[in-house]
Amino acid sequence: MNVIDLSLYLVTDEAPKCRRSLLETVQKAVDGGVSVVQYRSVNPDGGTCYREALPLRDFLASRSIPFIVNNRIDLALALEADGVHIGQRDLPVPIVRSLIGSQRILGLSVSNAAQLQAVDFSLVDYLGMGPVFPTVSKLNAPPALGVEGFAALAATAPVPVVAIGGLNAERARQVRATGTAAGIAVVSALCGAEDPAAAARALLA
Amino acid sequence: MNVIDLSLYLVTDEAPKCRRSLLETVQKAVDGGVSVVQYRSVNPDGGTCYREALPLRDFLASRSIPFIVNNRIDLALALEADGVHIGQRDLPVPIVRSLIGSQRILGLSVSNAAQLQAVDFSLVDYLGMGPVFPTVSKLNAPPALGVEGFAALAATAPVPVVAIGGLNAERARQVRATGTAAGIAVVSALCGAEDPAAAARALLA
Repeated sequence: MNVIDLSLYLVTDEAPKCRRSLLETVQKAVDGGVSVVQYRSVNPDGGTCYREALPLRDFLASRSIPFIVNNRIDLALALEADGVHIGQRDLPVPIVRSLIGSQRILGLSVSNAAQLQAVDFSLVDYLGMGPVFPTVSKLNAPPALGVEGFAALAATAPVPVVAIGGLNAERARQVRATGTAAGIAVVSALCGAEDPAAAARALLA
Repeated sequence: MNVIDLSLYLVTDEAPKCRRSLLETVQKAVDGGVSVVQYRSVNPDGGTCYREALPLRDFLASRSIPFIVNNRIDLALALEADGVHIGQRDLPVPIVRSLIGSQRILGLSVSNAAQLQAVDFSLVDYLGMGPVFPTVSKLNAPPALGVEGFAALAATAPVPVVAIGGLNAERARQVRATGTAAGIAVVSALCGAEDPAAAARALLA
């Protein structure tokens, strides 16, 4: 199993929805304590995503922060990313693991107990679990688990679990207080922040 | 260079836009003489595409018809496809070639002389060139080349060229008469046909 620091996990939003450029958002968020970054885009043009993500990858490598790519394994391989994150409707986990090899990080989103029970934990390094609260960053998101629902589910997982969905500093504290989360993942709390470094520090406080 | 029979090249449309199921469309089209099939989908859910394309792949393998996947290299690798087809906005050609290895077919779409001149022909097995005529199957398609424009461009390409865009039986004859096309690619002329086998025979006549 591949181990990384999941304590504050930034998932990038579409560039036009960010207050600053993607690169500047990531740089400032890392200055504030983000420990891992996932590049997520709904743009189907792999070349456009590749060019957009390259400077993120290079910056993160220079700071020894793991760089994860959402959904597209080909983009992750093209970018020589440290790992991939997939959801329930993406390529099957065993195929993804065979495509990325044993050394890359593989994260999987789960939203309920049935999905959790179906996971082959010999292939998955961590889980993204949520939404804990209703989210504005993802269309068609499943129902929110709530803090107690998250904690009950996360407590049964044999791999580290990152909480995601509608989290801000106060809600992050509530989640951390349950002792069941290896980390907190955010999109708009950092991408939409006036000062991503200060926002990251607040999320870690 | 990998050589395949490009004479009649079916590009699949989104399933809801086809008159029949994707599999039945492909089966009948192959009965009518289709020599190669490209799976193309705009659905971003890799798992959904994987499950949709698996029966196509298995059928085509049973008939020794090459199976190509559009755009998503990870899906192509997951399906153990015979090749991939990419456009100008997809991942860069050298990276795609390195991801798929030397034995898989690599096709590239070009729409004008500048794109043609930029191609590294040591990495690409064939070109898809068009649209020859205005197309209804692809949003934001470039301007149509016309038959003469296609022929002038295709004549300068050092690899086989497949004509695409708005082709029907009569237009396919016009393109073939120029002697510059290794094959004819269609979407709606087969996916939208009442009888895909008869439509394929007409396109080859």
